[in-house]
Amino acid sequence: MASKRVCLAYSGGLDTSTILVWLVQQGYEVVAFIADVGQEENFGDVEKKALSLGAERLVVADLQQEFVDEFIFPAIQCPIDANTTTDLLGTSLARPCIGRAQVKAAKQYNCKILSHGCKYQVRFELAWKACDPTLQVLAPWRIPEFFERFAGRQDLLNFAAQNKIPVSSTPKAPWSMDDNLAHCSYEAGILEQPELTPPENMWTRTVDPMKAPDEPAKFTIHFEKGIPVKVEIGDKVVTGSLEIFKALNEIGRVHGVGRIDIVESRFIGLKSRGCYDTPGLTIARLAHIDLEGLVMDSKVRSLRDRFVTYEWSQCLYNGMYFSPEREFLQHSLEFSQRQVDGKVHMMAFKGNAYVVGRSSETSNLYSETESSMDTLEGFSPMDTSGFIAIQGIRLEKYGARKIKDGEPLARV
Amino acid sequence: MASKRVCLAYSGGLDTSTILVWLVQQGYEVVAFIADVGQEENFGDVEKKALSLGAERLVVADLQQEFVDEFIFPAIQCPIDANTTTDLLGTSLARPCIGRAQVKAAKQYNCKILSHGCKYQVRFELAWKACDPTLQVLAPWRIPEFFERFAGRQDLLNFAAQNKIPVSSTPKAPWSMDDNLAHCSYEAGILEQPELTPPENMWTRTVDPMKAPDEPAKFTIHFEKGIPVKVEIGDKVVTGSLEIFKALNEIGRVHGVGRIDIVESRFIGLKSRGCYDTPGLTIARLAHIDLEGLVMDSKVRSLRDRFVTYEWSQCLYNGMYFSPEREFLQHSLEFSQRQVDGKVHMMAFKGNAYVVGRSSETSNLYSETESSMDTLEGFSPMDTSGFIAIQGIRLEKYGARKIKDGEPLARV
Amino acid sequence: MASKRVCLAYSGGLDTSTILVWLVQQGYEVVAFIADVGQEENFGDVEKKALSLGAERLVVADLQQEFVDEFIFPAIQCPIDANTTTDLLGTSLARPCIGRAQVKAAKQYNCKILSHGCKYQVRFELAWKACDPTLQVLAPWRIPEFFERFAGRQDLLNFAAQNKIPVSSTPKAPWSMDDNLAHCSYEAGILEQPELTPPENMWTRTVDPMKAPDEPAKFTIHFEKGIPVKVEIGDKVVTGSLEIFKALNEIGRVHGVGRIDIVESRFIGLKSRGCYDTPGLTIARLAHIDLEGLVMDSKVRSLRDRFVTYEWSQCLYNGMYFSPEREFLQHSLEFSQRQVDGKVHMMAFKGNAYVVGRSSETSNLYSETESSMDTLEGFSPMDTSGFIAIQGIRLEKYGARKIKDGEPLARV
Amino acid sequence: MASKRVCLAYSGGLDTSTILVWLVQQGYEVVAFIADVGQEENFGDVEKKALSLGAERLVVADLQQEFVDEFIFPAIQCPIDANTTTDLLGTSLARPCIGRAQVKAAKQYNCKILSHGCKYQVRFELAWKACDPTLQVLAPWRIPEFFERFAGRQDLLNFAAQNKIPVSSTPKAPWSMDDNLAHCSYEAGILEQPELTPPENMWTRTVDPMKAPDEPAKFTIHFEKGIPVKVEIGDKVVTGSLEIFKALNEIGRVHGVGRIDIVESRFIGLKSRGCYDTPGLTIARLAHIDLEGLVMDSKVRSLRDRFVTYEWSQCLYNGMYFSPEREFLQHSLEFSQRQVDGKVHMMAFKGNAYVVGRSSETSNLYSETESSMDTLEGFSPMDTSGFIAIQGIRLEKYGARKIKDGEPLARV
Repeated sequence: MASKRVCLAYSGGLDTSTILVWLVQQGYEVVAFIADVGQEENFGDVEKKALSLGAERLVVADLQQEFVDEFIFPAIQCPIDANTTTDLLGTSLARPCIGRAQVKAAKQYNCKILSHGCKYQVRFELAWKACDPTLQVLAPWRIPEFFERFAGRQDLLNFAAQNKIPVSSTPKAPWSMDDNLAHCSYEAGILEQPELTPPENMWTRTVDPMKAPDEPAKFTIHFEKGIPVKVEIGDKVVTGSLEIFKALNEIGRVHGVGRIDIVESRFIGLKSRGCYDTPGLTIARLAHIDLEGLVMDSKVRSLRDRFVTYEWSQCLYNGMYFSPEREFLQHSLEFSQRQVDGKVHMMAFKGNAYVVGRSSETSNLYSETESSMDTLEGFSPMDTSGFIAIQGIRLEKYGARKIKDGEPLARV
Repeated sequence: MASKRVCLAYSGGLDTSTILVWLVQQGYEVVAFIADVGQEENFGDVEKKALSLGAERLVVADLQQEFVDEFIFPAIQCPIDANTTTDLLGTSLARPCIGRAQVKAAKQYNCKILSHGCKYQVRFELAWKACDPTLQVLAPWRIPEFFERFAGRQDLLNFAAQNKIPVSSTPKAPWSMDDNLAHCSYEAGILEQPELTPPENMWTRTVDPMKAPDEPAKFTIHFEKGIPVKVEIGDKVVTGSLEIFKALNEIGRVHGVGRIDIVESRFIGLKSRGCYDTPGLTIARLAHIDLEGLVMDSKVRSLRDRFVTYEWSQCLYNGMYFSPEREFLQHSLEFSQRQVDGKVHMMAFKGNAYVVGRSSETSNLYSETESSMDTLEGFSPMDTSGFIAIQGIRLEKYGARKIKDGEPLARV
Repeated sequence: MASKRVCLAYSGGLDTSTILVWLVQQGYEVVAFIADVGQEENFGDVEKKALSLGAERLVVADLQQEFVDEFIFPAIQCPIDANTTTDLLGTSLARPCIGRAQVKAAKQYNCKILSHGCKYQVRFELAWKACDPTLQVLAPWRIPEFFERFAGRQDLLNFAAQNKIPVSSTPKAPWSMDDNLAHCSYEAGILEQPELTPPENMWTRTVDPMKAPDEPAKFTIHFEKGIPVKVEIGDKVVTGSLEIFKALNEIGRVHGVGRIDIVESRFIGLKSRGCYDTPGLTIARLAHIDLEGLVMDSKVRSLRDRFVTYEWSQCLYNGMYFSPEREFLQHSLEFSQRQVDGKVHMMAFKGNAYVVGRSSETSNLYSETESSMDTLEGFSPMDTSGFIAIQGIRLEKYGARKIKDGEPLARV
Repeated sequence: MASKRVCLAYSGGLDTSTILVWLVQQGYEVVAFIADVGQEENFGDVEKKALSLGAERLVVADLQQEFVDEFIFPAIQCPIDANTTTDLLGTSLARPCIGRAQVKAAKQYNCKILSHGCKYQVRFELAWKACDPTLQVLAPWRIPEFFERFAGRQDLLNFAAQNKIPVSSTPKAPWSMDDNLAHCSYEAGILEQPELTPPENMWTRTVDPMKAPDEPAKFTIHFEKGIPVKVEIGDKVVTGSLEIFKALNEIGRVHGVGRIDIVESRFIGLKSRGCYDTPGLTIARLAHIDLEGLVMDSKVRSLRDRFVTYEWSQCLYNGMYFSPEREFLQHSLEFSQRQVDGKVHMMAFKGNAYVVGRSSETSNLYSETESSMDTLEGFSPMDTSGFIAIQGIRLEKYGARKIKDGEPLARV
């Protein structure tokens, strides 16, 4: 009976193991699901545990390739600014990729119900609703029967003991983490004191910039239509999107590139402190921005920057990846990238990546001989007078009004 | 006779010295003008030269204080992104400050004509038109009589020899520079090959990150209403806006913070390669962005980021500082900063500045006890279900339409 | 005991009368509250009914003046377009005005609980939360105990019969209405068929354009700082904001101005058909837009149109009037209106209002002698060549690339 | 010799006839060019005159079909607001269409030079530069030799007399006009007094609303992908884009729909008064907006409204039709229209067009049974509580801060 079959997002941890057992006890047949998006994980161990606790099977979905191609690479083209109001969306990018895969797994194994072990997992659930509106959601942490029974961590431990759920003896880090190919995030716990510097051993995807090599790494990234297609590191040539991204991650890891520590505003309005290390995406994004400077029309770029970038990022951040507006924005984004072809020479050194040169064989926008007005054909210095005269009409009226109002702009 | 009195922007270089002499030969009385915006300059030497060539006087306007207070500090509050399409506007910020001062000098010394030694100096001239629409502009490099006579550099040198204009024996750098408190820019000459790495000796306001100290600098910046009011460096406390900015410049210089190398698009549509070192502004801006994360309402911040930042920067970049729209935008910007109070702990190390903690005594937006939904009073996990249900209505219709159209979002 | 005192938004209708009695039966002391925002209503009858059903008192808050001054007039300055995606916000403007007054009434009469008779009254509740976060909300239609008991209209009627609640014998209109000074809205019921033309007798605030007078009305609206300060209709002069707005409503009513019939998208994503008649606001807004054309700097206007208008309207529509972002936007809006002074001559005729002339004594932006380039002082035809030359640089590169790519823009 | 062959935009009027003769006298071979974009014109007479004055030929380019398909119909999809800051772009839409055709004519008849009879014709010249950057522009009104010779109208009349150029005996209207399928515009002359009502005999494309029929016209417009594909007027069915647009023009003409009288801001910053009658486009745009309300996702619509509409209109208004940014925007615009299918019932009556109903067979966005929350499946009233709770978090902090700052939002 399909209506009692549930596909549960399973991590192997205490929460989802408890839910797994509880579901079985409630009479559900449980298909456990885990996605491989490049995180540190021993999937064999997770499978053994799931099966031992009564799951029918563990589906391990290898999503690394599609995660890079469909989610990370568009984020390179959409230069949200890591320094301003948000991180580089590493977690937000993975959620719809994982959510869609879980819907597929549910369909494949005939489950009509999806479940997870979170309280506030807006992004998963919105992806599920869009991907298949007919599936139901069972979120135990929002069912009083469940959350009242497991009011504290000790209740979970007691239940685990009674039901032979193995509990890890490794002490848990005093913060929570989310790890994938794009980044690792750290929040909550001791990080909730925003004035305290995070401990050095927290960071997992980058070395400490102060311990990074004294020799910089030099490398070149090639782009076609705004997508990295080749990386040259010394004599080494890397191709293939997943391999390229892993290579950039490794450069960033070794040289400590891509750490940020910010206070951000969640969709719901709460402020929250988060730390992120995002090595490869930080480097790729910097190279991409630089190349666009060389080959992209300035007005198109400005339109993309003002309209697409912010809105696309908001779609991701707010769990609206599978939405009409994200589809609309991505269509515009891709159109803007048609001529983003060329290569960027870079250097990584002690926490930073630098662009040190760039070129494009196809673009006609930059021209050494035309980069100054002096060498521009068919242009006379007097043309500037006309340009200034027209631009100035409105400003002269403004200045005259200020004088009339007794507020001259230049008061002697 | 005022109509033959001209106020000339004078640098002491070959171009403006030639113009000075040429103006005197044409019968003008010349008041030479130079602004002190923190650049490397020996003003005594410039004055001697100006007087020796026939200027009535050299007006040296010390603008450092107003440059910081009226131009640089608002730019800190307007977080244009140095990594994307433009530099941090160091040159654009100085132009209206200097232009206004030259109008004041012209008025003070009874000149009805303003002059400069540039071909395309849109920013100066638009500032002049706004500040006093009654003044005339005399731009010799756009007057055929002048620019045809001085068609090449050798013509200038010949004229200098004939008229006893001293010519510097120092070989000129193979690029052009613009230096002020905010930054030094480098462009043209050998830099017009965008694939070539700029020579190490080019940079003047920052040391090479690879030669920066092995010990990081640690310091704290205090803000009130979004403006830096105090910097603590070890036991040292710096106050006063100009002193604070100079202290940040010094930290940035020593640790090599704030170098960028980009290809940008000028207003007129030409692509141009520029390098910039902007130490203090880079650091102050990073701290300010971080503090806003802690104390600024997320929606107000988003409005400021999307609307004010880009447009304000465009006003500056395009020479529209003295304009109704910049006045309107700045008014909004200042209103957004009313509650940006607090302090940011930072570290500078080998080319990078890092935020390592922040706090505010006045803001109620971040609350350690409320930073997670779990501890938020009057909030139940079930509320999330309602939120998701409402957010999902539109997405379910989208998914259903995709299925109907034979393009399911999750294709098994 | 304050904790059992509740301030109930009371209309006199079946729903809120039922709630009133039910609250009393639950042991609450009920302060009934009704706002006068210019709707058709007999407040004496409402009071009698409230008292007869056990309310301690009925507070009638006369909000007409503040509704016009604080809510309707800013909406005139914020030219949301009635023809595009929303109505002119008549309902959304009244909600925060009423919500705030109910909080004041609750405080005055020592109630710690606020109540209403709606299911989805997001706008009231968000206003309440902002105006006093310490008050509690009691929404019976969202309490299972209540809404399960009153599952159908017959349950309400039975309860009314048992509890001697007078039930109106007037048959209810087959749609729902919301009436106030700004507009009357009509939705639901038979209007849910978007292909059907609404019945003629539905409209209450405007006559049928086909039955409007054959003679147009001519009148003049004077503005100061973007606010109507005087209306002249023939020899009649109207001053005082409330009186002015009522006069415009009357002109619009007689001549059938301001009807719209649209399908709009609610915040939650559902589509909904709504009809609105909005006579005075439609006229005032048209006049204001016209005057801005004459006296407002084009760039400031464009910034206001693109940034403030949409976002301000969204704040209202989404119930976010009392929010940091609305405060921020309104501040910018007001700044933009400083010089919107002048008068607009208008005509209303059979469903339409027309601007037939306008003037301003204070603005210097329009000048008859300068309205063409030919008469503009200090401007030469050749200046246009320079302007075009500079504007064209980028376009020539675009055209050249198209030719190179085999896609010439002008294919013969 | 191609270099002495010029393609001249020729209207048959005094200015361009003078230029034609002057060019011939300067030794040029002149190919005269005129476009048929639906204006009132006797092309046979124009041809006779051109040939009599020495033109090699007159090229009459019939552009009505492509003007509707490529320019007018996209403008229907881009709902710029006629009531706010600009007209419906009738002139701006025609310019690139005509400019491109003239480039084609020049190529066809081997001319390397393009000419026109305007002073400030930015839109034509920018279109020419983009369509073929190799062609030269000869603008006699910007050549001192020409404009100094013809300083006043009498100089033109004297030259006409000497050179046997026929001069029309019809007195010229005291304003200037631009007529095409989309609209007729009126400006300059007596219209430069913005407080004066334009004379009734000025309008050419619409009858006076006060003289329009007492019976309304009823009709239905069908759309596919946002484009009108059929109009039903009583028993009459019109198909074919050009025929449809002409039919809508005729309805609008008869019923006086689409007149506006505004003061607008030109690109260069000058204010200018313009009157426009735009019958068919006004009607089609209103219908299209209405249909989008029914069938377009609200978020996509908002993105189109905020980002594409304004910028696309600016491209047209500023002569930037043939530009990378317009191409980018139009691509997004078209994507947004994929599902804009359905029909709109309308009525035209004495100056106004009204939507009286609409429907779509393909869209699932509007659902009568789901148009209220009450009937929405899988949704409980309590979900609203959760939604409000989350939306309110930020507002409660705002209200609390206001109280703390002594500025409570509800002051009793």
